[in-house]
This record gives sequence, structure tokens and C-alpha cells, in this order.
Amino acid sequence: MSFDPATLTYNDAGLIPAIAQDAQSGEVLMMAWMNAESVAKTLETGQVTYWSRSRQEFWVKGATSGNTQTLVDFRVDCDRDCLLLEVDQAGPACHTGRRTCFYTAVRNGEEVEIEMPMADQPSA
Amino acid sequence: MSFDPATLTYNDAGLIPAIAQDAQSGEVLMMAWMNAESVAKTLETGQVTYWSRSRQEFWVKGATSGNTQTLVDFRVDCDRDCLLLEVDQAGPACHTGRRTCFYTAVRNGEEVEIEMPMADQPSA
Repeated sequence: MSFDPATLTYNDAGLIPAIAQDAQSGEVLMMAWMNAESVAKTLETGQVTYWSRSRQEFWVKGATSGNTQTLVDFRVDCDRDCLLLEVDQAGPACHTGRRTCFYTAVRNGEEVEIEMPMADQPSA
Repeated sequence: MSFDPATLTYNDAGLIPAIAQDAQSGEVLMMAWMNAESVAKTLETGQVTYWSRSRQEFWVKGATSGNTQTLVDFRVDCDRDCLLLEVDQAGPACHTGRRTCFYTAVRNGEEVEIEMPMADQPSA
């Protein structure tokens, strides 16, 4: 593979922000972080693999919950310091059970919940 | 206004990542950073105002280029450490003249440019 994850720009902790967007609906699902090795793993496996800052370990999205993100397209921004992942999201992306993590809006100065948790899904 | 920008979670530099998405097309345009004061300015003025890390000053998007981002909806994620801005984007969002900063894809291990710069727009 000639794309080299080392050519991306990482922060002082060696991380780059990665935005996950539903490839079909265009909904922005979440933002998390990757290091160079998780970028490589994501491209190699096709399963989105973040770096967990709290656990300091690889985080294969959905490995325990089943709510996987299968990579559809991998994009790099003009500054090479942010990633956009087009994904096929299984079930909710958010740990609260909502499709997206961005379920709170600020409207007229007040926080409003604009999305409810998804109903429990039968497992595939 | 009862929403308090101080209730968001900022990094050690006092910044929070903000993703701008075209409110009509759903296209993810760019990611930049805000501090608490730029969050407040964005909500007060309706014009997306980032914090420029390189210039260490407020960055009213489009103030010099005319490629403004008018806020349509302001969203906060579940961890309160990332923002999603639904915007009405005038012209290209990217300084390269492209609609989005995410114009490079990695496909089959190679970088591919998937979007060309927009033609020069007559100013409104």
C-alpha cells in the first residue's frame, strides 16, 4: 500500500480526529481519535478502529456492542490533520443508544434533545 | 441565554473541535476549533466564528473571503467535547477553493482527489 499513515499530521499525543459519517444518509455520527496504527488497521481491515484515549488501547468500534462501522470511504482533509470516514453503521453509533452522538441542539439559547434512543434491535 | 459555553469540555488549550456540515446537502465541509468565547460569538451572531490556532485570534469564517458560514443549527455531542455546526455555506469552505476540505480519498491504498476547485463565483 503506498498511502503512508505517517504522512498525516498528528497532535502532541500522536492522535488525529476522525469524523464518522453515515455513507448513505449523510448523518454525522460521532468524532473520535486515531493514531497512525489505528489508521493503518482501519484501512487494512475495513473495520473502523479508533484509539481510546481513556483506555489507551485500540477500539474496534462495535467489537463488544456489535454496532460496527464498516469503512466505505476514507478521506483526508487539506491540512492532513483531520479524517472523514464514510461508514456503514450497524445500529446506533452512540453509547446512549442513539443513532448519532450529536443528539443535543442549542436552540434559542436552550439545549434540546432532538433524537431519542433507537428501539432495541434484534441482533443480525 | 441559559446555555452556558463553559459547560462544554475543552482540551488543555481551551479548545473544542467543531465540524461544519452543509445543512442542505449533508456534506461535511471542514473541522476547526472553537474556544468558549467563539462558541458564544457564533451563537450570538449566527456567523460561525472559530479560534485560529495559528494566528491565535478569532476567525469569523468568510470575513475576508466572503465564504461565510451562517449557522442553521448548533449541536453538541454526548460527551460535550465536540460540536456539529449545521451551516449555510457561501461558496467554497476550503481555502483551496473546493467546496469541502475533505477532497482527498484513500482508495486501494492510493490517494485520489475526488473534488476539483469550484469555478470562480461572481460575488453576491
